Amino acid sequence: MKDIISRDFLIDPEITSSCLYLGDWPISRVFLKNNAYFPWLILVPRIENIREIDDIPQKARYQLMDEISQLCSITRSYFQPDKLNIAYLGNKVNQLHIHIVARFLEDILWPEGIWQPAQPTACYDNLKLTTLLSDLRTKILS
Amino acid sequence: MKDIISRDFLIDPEITSSCLYLGDWPISRVFLKNNAYFPWLILVPRIENIREIDDIPQKARYQLMDEISQLCSITRSYFQPDKLNIAYLGNKVNQLHIHIVARFLEDILWPEGIWQPAQPTACYDNLKLTTLLSDLRTKILS
Repeated sequence: MKDIISRDFLIDPEITSSCLYLGDWPISRVFLKNNAYFPWLILVPRIENIREIDDIPQKARYQLMDEISQLCSITRSYFQPDKLNIAYLGNKVNQLHIHIVARFLEDILWPEGIWQPAQPTACYDNLKLTTLLSDLRTKILS
Repeated sequence: MKDIISRDFLIDPEITSSCLYLGDWPISRVFLKNNAYFPWLILVPRIENIREIDDIPQKARYQLMDEISQLCSITRSYFQPDKLNIAYLGNKVNQLHIHIVARFLEDILWPEGIWQPAQPTACYDNLKLTTLLSDLRTKILS
């Protein structure tokens, strides 16, 4: 994958300002969204100038699919959600990024989607965030 | 893929009641959602008892990624949208299915997600629907 990964790749400031860095995989940079209402992970493929999945060469798409699947498995085993919601939207942030959100029957928006104008937002408290970052970084780098 | 495709596979009635059949690919059955507000395609992997992407064996996941990418390309070339929105949600319909929705800067919900309680719904008129089905079936089966 090294031939298509950009060394000077920049993450959109909308993502870096609302998320915390967890680690790098062969294609993606992995983030935790700082929103205590939903366990929410984001993958950003480190490839320049792509907006849609079919802009990515096939081999890199397969690797991205592996990374989506791996992050789904980590999210399921760690958070034990009732359902995952996965989305590639990009209406507001141009850079291609993939949301993986753990949903629960008792969460504040179940069973609706979370991408709506009235999306509830609250940062994690610092103790919880420290634990989450440590645990998730260990799983992502293992 | 024949070893994991179920011959007796049933599509959830929530999908069949709101969508029209377009064709079968090696993994997926492809549908057009009958909602004139958004060009909206749905892929249903014909595998029993899967709810999440990481329940699918790797080889079949790669094939599914190819089919998602192919349907993205067809949707982009036919509808010329400003953005695609792709989502695997499954909060209301248990069966794993993938939405590919063509979004436009002037559509009724832009730039918000379309999966919200107040989602606008209207059937295509019959002439438009006939053209869409004919054109999309040709592209999907070619």
